[in-house]
Amino acid sequence: MARPMGPVRLKRANPVTIAIGAVLCIFILYFLIASGGSHTISAARNANAASHPLSPPTSPFRKSNSKGKPKPPPVTRYNMNNITTTSNPIENNEHILVLSPMARFYQQYWDNLLKLSYPHELMTLAFILPKTKEGNAATAALQAQITKTQKFGDEKERFKSIIILRQDIDPPLVSQDESERHKIENQKARRAAMAKARNSLLFTTLGPSTSWVLWLDSDVVETPPSLIQDLASHDAPIIAPNCFQRFLNPETNKMDERPYDYNNWQDSPTAQELAARMGPDDILLEGYAEMATYRSLMTHMTTPGESPHQEVPLDGVGGTALLVKAEVHRDGAMFPAFPFYHLIETEGFARMAKRLGWVSIGLPNYKVYHYNE
Amino acid sequence: MARPMGPVRLKRANPVTIAIGAVLCIFILYFLIASGGSHTISAARNANAASHPLSPPTSPFRKSNSKGKPKPPPVTRYNMNNITTTSNPIENNEHILVLSPMARFYQQYWDNLLKLSYPHELMTLAFILPKTKEGNAATAALQAQITKTQKFGDEKERFKSIIILRQDIDPPLVSQDESERHKIENQKARRAAMAKARNSLLFTTLGPSTSWVLWLDSDVVETPPSLIQDLASHDAPIIAPNCFQRFLNPETNKMDERPYDYNNWQDSPTAQELAARMGPDDILLEGYAEMATYRSLMTHMTTPGESPHQEVPLDGVGGTALLVKAEVHRDGAMFPAFPFYHLIETEGFARMAKRLGWVSIGLPNYKVYHYNE
Repeated sequence: MARPMGPVRLKRANPVTIAIGAVLCIFILYFLIASGGSHTISAARNANAASHPLSPPTSPFRKSNSKGKPKPPPVTRYNMNNITTTSNPIENNEHILVLSPMARFYQQYWDNLLKLSYPHELMTLAFILPKTKEGNAATAALQAQITKTQKFGDEKERFKSIIILRQDIDPPLVSQDESERHKIENQKARRAAMAKARNSLLFTTLGPSTSWVLWLDSDVVETPPSLIQDLASHDAPIIAPNCFQRFLNPETNKMDERPYDYNNWQDSPTAQELAARMGPDDILLEGYAEMATYRSLMTHMTTPGESPHQEVPLDGVGGTALLVKAEVHRDGAMFPAFPFYHLIETEGFARMAKRLGWVSIGLPNYKVYHYNE
Repeated sequence: MARPMGPVRLKRANPVTIAIGAVLCIFILYFLIASGGSHTISAARNANAASHPLSPPTSPFRKSNSKGKPKPPPVTRYNMNNITTTSNPIENNEHILVLSPMARFYQQYWDNLLKLSYPHELMTLAFILPKTKEGNAATAALQAQITKTQKFGDEKERFKSIIILRQDIDPPLVSQDESERHKIENQKARRAAMAKARNSLLFTTLGPSTSWVLWLDSDVVETPPSLIQDLASHDAPIIAPNCFQRFLNPETNKMDERPYDYNNWQDSPTAQELAARMGPDDILLEGYAEMATYRSLMTHMTTPGESPHQEVPLDGVGGTALLVKAEVHRDGAMFPAFPFYHLIETEGFARMAKRLGWVSIGLPNYKVYHYNE
């Protein structure tokens, strides 16, 4: 297997400059659950804590070793081979990681989270917020609510644990206003930054005990309380409800609703032809008149009177609300910050998952609602 | 933005069958470091443990709360915004995660790991082994050595923590023999499976306190003790030493060495032309006469007498030994189990990292050695 010897090129400059500004700045808030309230729940929490206090244990866990108490065993083993991901997650005690990138804090988002009927002691929440003035304000507001819930709230309301990450990457846009965010020329940079934020959150918080990952955008303010159980009951690798937005209809002067998340779609020949003619770094975007893809959007598939459990296959998914089996991510499915088959972020994720053999489905008649700015 | 309403396709069968066999079966062995030995090291370990006992805290951490002792504070915060990734990792107390996929256990691998001079209290080891007969034997042998080191070894030798994952995915090949593994027709399936194993290991163990990830194959049996410091001193996002193999040269009847890891390379026009003519699911492989790529291989770039710190840029990297800044992975760079620019696994990783703006370099004169089967 002899080959010509390659040229030894000159030393390149160290890529320190590339690294600057991308260093993750991480805070962890870990909220211990004070005792009190229902004894049954306390026992469940304790049993759970005892079986795997570290997950994953990338830092040492030292039991207290004061005088008069027995020394900790020098070797402790945590057998965790009973992790399942099933359509009956509560019965099987399945842990769920709820991941929310957050730019602004909405009280309605938090209130809706508290109302979720999935056992809170099986739910870990993790947030990533930008290191900006707006991000600082959102972090402060979030921390106030977390303290209220985890410290003073009813024990049933308290979550297993909560993680907050702060990201040092410069936000690509100055404004988080809806009109500015949605401009087509801003979308590629904005969604690449969002993809990196999602990946940082995912890679840093996914542990060995996680069965499910629920992506829930911090501006989703209304879902059925049984959201997690309802989605999990379909036993799908990736499943998306249909995200709408409530608004005051000026014509009727009554509250109405309109489609919001256009990223849940079935592919079209038009979109594939557009992609085939594109340069390698171009991306397809959904929801813009100037780039008509004629994809079949899930937002347009609702059928009044039909079951909320009616399924449709999807080729692209959005991130407003999305339930993913942890093994899909563990196989390597992440959110590409670069054009992947001319798709980016959550839409690229669905494409990547498909390359790994995992299908996405949607529930057109199962609605969740986005904040109306 | 009106669009034609999409067809509501019939319900697809639940993808349970896809999921079967891919469920991760995870064991965690967490080895507490018993007290004793040098007091300075104990203090350092304790200080470290106190600042972040959970990393990431996806499971509850409950301090003991027996009678007569003060109750734990209801809210505990871990401020972890001082994580750095620099060319002086020891001085900056930087934590490193050493990741090794393992099919067979080699005593020389473990002995070499113990000899690494990077402070062991800053090193977390994590392994992934297949759920096969051979994998069970390797796990047993590994556990015996871990117990010896973590329980009975000198305190300086003990690592911060150790994680073992067992993977339920069927191995694509029956044999792990070198000749069988390296057959070109077996490479795509083998390397796709290896990519998924690497991703499972990475996604499950990377925590918020990790600064560096060292990929070290479990059949790398000889490295300089200062491997981590030497590679980190280059402050590169991704850096690979040159992997060779010692053998008894039949011509001279003396010990000699030969190139081993052909996946560290600089791209060539020939390889790019080959890729351009390939089908979308075909992959380029390095080190096979029947697919001559004429890439410049780092294994052929050694210059006797030159500095081991001489750098060359790389377009593809191998996984035998590879130091990666944690932020590269956090941005989403993983090991594609599918053809990515006609590349797979570690070579696909380098390409994906490049798409994310991170460059790879190699040290042609800095050698590590692979086991000779």
